[in-house]
Amino acid sequence: MRFTSEQRLDDGVLEREFTLGEIPGILWTPGSASAPAPLILLGHPGGLHKMYPRLAARARHCAAEGFAAATIELPGGGDRPRSAAAEQARADLHRALETGVPVDDEIVDRLVLPLVEKAVPEWRATLDALLSLPEIGGPVGYAGGVIAIGVRLAVVEPRISAAGLFAGSYVPRATFEEAREVTIPLHVLLQWDDEGNDRQAALDLFDAFGSKEKTLQANMGGHTGVPQFAGEDAHRFFTRHLK
Amino acid sequence: MRFTSEQRLDDGVLEREFTLGEIPGILWTPGSASAPAPLILLGHPGGLHKMYPRLAARARHCAAEGFAAATIELPGGGDRPRSAAAEQARADLHRALETGVPVDDEIVDRLVLPLVEKAVPEWRATLDALLSLPEIGGPVGYAGGVIAIGVRLAVVEPRISAAGLFAGSYVPRATFEEAREVTIPLHVLLQWDDEGNDRQAALDLFDAFGSKEKTLQANMGGHTGVPQFAGEDAHRFFTRHLK
Repeated sequence: MRFTSEQRLDDGVLEREFTLGEIPGILWTPGSASAPAPLILLGHPGGLHKMYPRLAARARHCAAEGFAAATIELPGGGDRPRSAAAEQARADLHRALETGVPVDDEIVDRLVLPLVEKAVPEWRATLDALLSLPEIGGPVGYAGGVIAIGVRLAVVEPRISAAGLFAGSYVPRATFEEAREVTIPLHVLLQWDDEGNDRQAALDLFDAFGSKEKTLQANMGGHTGVPQFAGEDAHRFFTRHLK
Repeated sequence: MRFTSEQRLDDGVLEREFTLGEIPGILWTPGSASAPAPLILLGHPGGLHKMYPRLAARARHCAAEGFAAATIELPGGGDRPRSAAAEQARADLHRALETGVPVDDEIVDRLVLPLVEKAVPEWRATLDALLSLPEIGGPVGYAGGVIAIGVRLAVVEPRISAAGLFAGSYVPRATFEEAREVTIPLHVLLQWDDEGNDRQAALDLFDAFGSKEKTLQANMGGHTGVPQFAGEDAHRFFTRHLK
């Protein structure tokens, strides 16, 4: 892990860009940390530059609660090399959406599963590097999308002790099976009136999770309109489980 | 409204039993209130004496947040006169449950609708009396079951500005229609693994509500196992809307 830039934000949060091999990422740490901070990994749908304002806002909220936060670019996202197969799957998805036919499971599998296969080892390598920093101490949470990546991480990465997931569409069939193996506490956000989202799939996935403590919070406000109090509830979830 | 007993609880909360005509009830007010307190009406499934420990715990939580809280006995509950029709409906319900046949909508209508017709005017008369007390100032919230009563109150009683409802089974068909007329902010709690509850009916009812701000929070823990943090979230909901 190599830090490539460093700036102190106006609320005292230290924001550092890094690269881990070919993978760009950002680490935010609280301004005044007396002890190693617990860490929240911020998931997103890819495109770090475009997502920066929302990620930075979430990270600063984390830092205000005493958490470090980090994110990395997804495989194929931003300036990272695209895979021809993923581009084809994306084109097939858009064609299905434009013609109004139901999106075939097979397209979803081609779009999401290779992403999970590549992204999860990258997140784990990032975790290795972050946990070697003296200012970060764990425990670790995962927050955000892509939900199939969050589910896989929750199953295979024992250092992740709690996950806050955004319920989204295009969940591969295999993810519903994997969800049964998840046992860590979960906080799932669902935008009830998100017309681009498959609500029933989100409810089925929530039902499938094997965790004894799982909370589904459904709110109004459309795809990007998660209410402020829902964000605060999610932070309280992490405070309960990571502190 | 006639107060029949008065005691100061160990946390300073003043608990007063009252009668309003034939209806027994309990009022809890914060120990140290400098201004008239907003009020939360505590709904329950009937049987004030049996429900007392849980109602008192909820009321003390309300008082700790600066709310007054009040409850009344349901028609036919506790020592109040039973109606032969309601008893017959209850017997028919139990017979259906014992034989494992699906509970007919017609039984639910006979069981719940007359209760709504009687209980809602009683709650409104109680509200008249409570709001005439100098220590209670409004605004007013309704919290708890019976959900069909909460829905009717939310539609017909303009003094109720927010409602926290427990999703329960045995929702009359008419209540789904009425739910569309509800416009006040709602916080709906659903115990996801409550085997005695019809989860799909709860989700359908949440979907039907006309409110622009509505939150569904689903948790694990069975019928009576609402997690502590869920109670705290519900109180934050009332604090957002009644203060």
